[in-house]
Amino acid sequence: MSARAHPVDDDGEISPVDTSSPRQANTPYVHKVEVPPKQNLFNEFMYTFKETFFHDDPLRHFKDQSKSKKLMLGIQSVFPVIEWGRKYNLKMFRGDLIAGLTIASLCIPQDIGYAKLASLDPKYGLYSSFVPPLVYACMGSSKDIAIGPVAVVSLLLGTLLRAEIDPNTNPNEYLRLALTSTFFAGVTQAALGFFRLGFLIDFLSHAAVVGFMGGAAITIALQQLKGFLGINKFTKKTDIIAVLSSVISSAHHGWNWQTILISASFLIFLLISKFIGKKNKKLFWIPAIAPLVSVIISTFFVYITRADKKGVQIVKHLDKGLNPSSLRLIYFSGDYLLKGFRIGVVSGMVALTEAVAIGRTFAAMKDYQIDGNKEMVALGAMNVIGSMTSCYVSTGSFSRSAVNFMAGCQTAVSNIIMSIVVLLTLLFLTPLFKYTPNAILAAIIINAVIPLVDVNATILIFKIDKLDFVACMGAFFGVIFVSVEIGLLIAVGISFAKILLQVTRPRTAILGKIPGTSVYRNINQYPEATRIPGVLTIRVDSAIYFSNSNYVRERIQRWLTDEEEMVKAASLPRIQFLIIEMSPVTDIDTSGIHALEDLYKSLQKRDIQLVLANPGPPVINKLHVSHFADLIGHDKIFLTVAEAVDSCSPKLSDEV
Amino acid sequence: MSARAHPVDDDGEISPVDTSSPRQANTPYVHKVEVPPKQNLFNEFMYTFKETFFHDDPLRHFKDQSKSKKLMLGIQSVFPVIEWGRKYNLKMFRGDLIAGLTIASLCIPQDIGYAKLASLDPKYGLYSSFVPPLVYACMGSSKDIAIGPVAVVSLLLGTLLRAEIDPNTNPNEYLRLALTSTFFAGVTQAALGFFRLGFLIDFLSHAAVVGFMGGAAITIALQQLKGFLGINKFTKKTDIIAVLSSVISSAHHGWNWQTILISASFLIFLLISKFIGKKNKKLFWIPAIAPLVSVIISTFFVYITRADKKGVQIVKHLDKGLNPSSLRLIYFSGDYLLKGFRIGVVSGMVALTEAVAIGRTFAAMKDYQIDGNKEMVALGAMNVIGSMTSCYVSTGSFSRSAVNFMAGCQTAVSNIIMSIVVLLTLLFLTPLFKYTPNAILAAIIINAVIPLVDVNATILIFKIDKLDFVACMGAFFGVIFVSVEIGLLIAVGISFAKILLQVTRPRTAILGKIPGTSVYRNINQYPEATRIPGVLTIRVDSAIYFSNSNYVRERIQRWLTDEEEMVKAASLPRIQFLIIEMSPVTDIDTSGIHALEDLYKSLQKRDIQLVLANPGPPVINKLHVSHFADLIGHDKIFLTVAEAVDSCSPKLSDEV
Repeated sequence: MSARAHPVDDDGEISPVDTSSPRQANTPYVHKVEVPPKQNLFNEFMYTFKETFFHDDPLRHFKDQSKSKKLMLGIQSVFPVIEWGRKYNLKMFRGDLIAGLTIASLCIPQDIGYAKLASLDPKYGLYSSFVPPLVYACMGSSKDIAIGPVAVVSLLLGTLLRAEIDPNTNPNEYLRLALTSTFFAGVTQAALGFFRLGFLIDFLSHAAVVGFMGGAAITIALQQLKGFLGINKFTKKTDIIAVLSSVISSAHHGWNWQTILISASFLIFLLISKFIGKKNKKLFWIPAIAPLVSVIISTFFVYITRADKKGVQIVKHLDKGLNPSSLRLIYFSGDYLLKGFRIGVVSGMVALTEAVAIGRTFAAMKDYQIDGNKEMVALGAMNVIGSMTSCYVSTGSFSRSAVNFMAGCQTAVSNIIMSIVVLLTLLFLTPLFKYTPNAILAAIIINAVIPLVDVNATILIFKIDKLDFVACMGAFFGVIFVSVEIGLLIAVGISFAKILLQVTRPRTAILGKIPGTSVYRNINQYPEATRIPGVLTIRVDSAIYFSNSNYVRERIQRWLTDEEEMVKAASLPRIQFLIIEMSPVTDIDTSGIHALEDLYKSLQKRDIQLVLANPGPPVINKLHVSHFADLIGHDKIFLTVAEAVDSCSPKLSDEV
Repeated sequence: MSARAHPVDDDGEISPVDTSSPRQANTPYVHKVEVPPKQNLFNEFMYTFKETFFHDDPLRHFKDQSKSKKLMLGIQSVFPVIEWGRKYNLKMFRGDLIAGLTIASLCIPQDIGYAKLASLDPKYGLYSSFVPPLVYACMGSSKDIAIGPVAVVSLLLGTLLRAEIDPNTNPNEYLRLALTSTFFAGVTQAALGFFRLGFLIDFLSHAAVVGFMGGAAITIALQQLKGFLGINKFTKKTDIIAVLSSVISSAHHGWNWQTILISASFLIFLLISKFIGKKNKKLFWIPAIAPLVSVIISTFFVYITRADKKGVQIVKHLDKGLNPSSLRLIYFSGDYLLKGFRIGVVSGMVALTEAVAIGRTFAAMKDYQIDGNKEMVALGAMNVIGSMTSCYVSTGSFSRSAVNFMAGCQTAVSNIIMSIVVLLTLLFLTPLFKYTPNAILAAIIINAVIPLVDVNATILIFKIDKLDFVACMGAFFGVIFVSVEIGLLIAVGISFAKILLQVTRPRTAILGKIPGTSVYRNINQYPEATRIPGVLTIRVDSAIYFSNSNYVRERIQRWLTDEEEMVKAASLPRIQFLIIEMSPVTDIDTSGIHALEDLYKSLQKRDIQLVLANPGPPVINKLHVSHFADLIGHDKIFLTVAEAVDSCSPKLSDEV
């Protein structure tokens, strides 16, 4: 093929010899745009299918293996522990032990607080830090993630559940619905992973997540004011207006100064320890154990002073003993089944977003691969089993994972250590929490959610992409002024709107010749670029699909109209050629072809020639199949704008 | 700026002097990728906003005009008739008169049949061909479209309405709901246009429409078997199985041979006349008037033979007189309000799709601009007014518009002529339709919907885009085997799935150097292209957004892993440089930047250098704002792959 004799690349960059001065119109053009060899339909389909659902080629290891080996690999891919367990050694264990103990000390007080966020009894928080981490350790592939209940999901779950059932009037049904939701959250997660639909969570854009998390963090902090100020009568709503007004209204009588004294002083203590940890990375353990330390101190303090008699609210009672089975509590029928399903899907997706984001972040830091879909199956299984052992939705926690990473965890064993510590706590230590003031839990949670308000990320988003920023702010304000669901809805809505915008409104630009070169580029970028009289060159910056084909056609026609008016005003030679630079047009579909046909027809009426420059392989292929190439003439398709212009200029000179 | 001194275009095509033999690693690279000048935030926003909603610049004529002139132009843009009315002359009128009479003769029998399709009294079909065309003539901007009830919308409306109310048991409520739906169809259309959301209908892709229309045509033809065979007891369902079984079950007793004789013979007559019209474009009027002729003949025949006594069903009764006002019949409250709204939105959108497609097609043929959004306002107003004058949803008819065009219509006056003829018919001729056999209407409708099954278009779609074909077939089979709504749902669903696919799974390709040039392109396209040892060059063929950032990252990592395995197997020098060719990457957002950062981190761990080639203006801008450029080093960003490789090769040679 001639393109081999005179090679030309995708960019229309051509070997120097060819960018010579304009040749005569009658000499044929050496650079034909070749049509790629025909593809077998089945292969084509299989390729697309693979790229869509198996782009990470998860089955690569299974290729040409014996049956038994395949089975072994199959089991391994479900339980990665079998693989890394063999290579496990004492040195690794040291790292995991320290990390495990650290995150345990961090998670125990958090769990108790987060359970309250979900309007559940504190023990369910601890339960959820026992079973799920064990399951994940066997099935998960992330080495750094720390599993357990998290603030945002607890808040979301609580809000959704309270909308259905009042936890105070009938706590039993409330618990059952919570477990049902957890079950379906797990099913959703596992299903997404199993059917390779993990990419769906990517549609919740980073910007939206930042805004949502920030809003949720503030909402959570506001909820803590109840415990922080020792208020008895507190609003059920979560939006900032309702909460603040109820706080202020109770200012005169409702606040309890002893409570405020405790919470304020310990919050300061926590913030200072966090500051120290930030300053000196070696001292990361100080902020990590600070919460547990303050729990111990404050509990002891309340115990000796009997401050609870003076209106300081305490945990009072925390059951001893392990997770009871809860399979029979899950609703598998009745209208709570549907409600549980809905709540489960929502909270499951949000939990997934957080866990997968964490997995990816740390995988990138240590450079190991994570199969997002396999990860989802693991998280799903973990929650399904959890829902049968009195746990509510657990996932990866940003803060604890970071600590886990800094504490030098090597494998998921750190999660096992953590759950063993939780196990011991459940068996022996729960009574000690009797005198723990709620104030301290409030302080711990406030301290824990502060980092979720990521101002720097927001600023960066604003700098990089304004529409992302809108999504971010929409989610943020949606959460704090209305509710978490609304915030989530706004986030997803704007993310989708952005996609629609992307596929409906691609960029177009007029190209000009840069003096002294054979080079054409955006005249807005390069004001010195000159237009060739009688020729209009437009570049389309996207694949032309049904979603944007009409826009592209109309936009090109508008460029042309503007240009013609300009030309008439300046009494320059009229436009005779419209060159479309197609390098960035990666693909085209039926609607796109029709748009081009319509454009061609209307150009004919104006006696303007349509010329195409450098259509990519799939495009040139479709131009031929649809006979559009025959319509405009094969000699109207060139490899570079330079050549296209050369082909026009002689005809122009005849006229001028 | 240096880019001016050494101009380089978007395509990375650089002036010959610069593509010289590899330079030393220590010499600096002359071609910096310049960062475009900072944009004012407000301008940036306004630009995006304008491109999104006002890309066709509808207000251009209003620029620098006096107040009074602006008002005049405003009125004109709502009533284009004022503009073209002034230039109207007798020559134009001749064309419009002939065209108007032709489409009138075509529409009258069709209207009666289509009204039956919507389970409405025949007169409402005629009503809908009287008022709406007049309104459109004043407000519409298409010169060739023929307004009135159409087969597909009538079928859709009928199906949706019958799902709510049985037209036989309570016809009055049925009519009221039909008018309510028409009202809201109009409101929807006008709203879409007014808020510049017309692009939303583009999401119903051409392929989906072809499939949907084909399916609907077949469903309609099947419905006609009742009248065609003279069956009395006929199923209410519209799916092919139910219809055929009820046809076959009634074969022995239910069919009426006289009816079949009439319908069959006239169908043949219609088909022959259509064939003649196809063969000789001059004789287009033969198929155009054939329906009316056959109505007249058959009616006369039935009248003299009194075939209606022998079981040939006839229209029996058709009210005389003009459209009565129907404003008070519209439901503005109650639960029928919501149902009417839902049905109106659906049927309004479908009607819009058909009308806009027609408008665009003929506008392209005669090269005049149509403002899709203004068009929608016109169609919406037409249906709102229609709903208050006993009309049901009308829109542009493919078949009649084509006839209108061929008959040489000049302006929308042809629609006025048509509606006048319909007016006269309503006033004086309706009694004559008493003896018109339903069989003839069935034959006419069958003949009318045949062209909607566009086999060639389907074949073309199959050739061009396989996924489009799936959407097409999905819609087609959805309609004929289930129902029109389901077909529509499938069509929209698959269209959206295609968009998601497009934004989640962009193409990537490995580039190789074509021998004897400084040119890099897809090695799958150009097998002779050679890879540079130690360097992997990957091109990403799309903007990198949150929806595809993770896929892009993982895909690049997989390319790398494959390559490294290959290299190890062939014991070649290990990969030291990963070059990403970014020419087609038209934009990037926050998630995209983060994906690149993650990629960079994991590459660092493998001691591989990340190099970027030719990022476009918005991309380079964001790379700088996000300090990613600082992270990888400004000397790692090049204008062409060739330069990037040159910068690597010396370092490579040191090692090899």
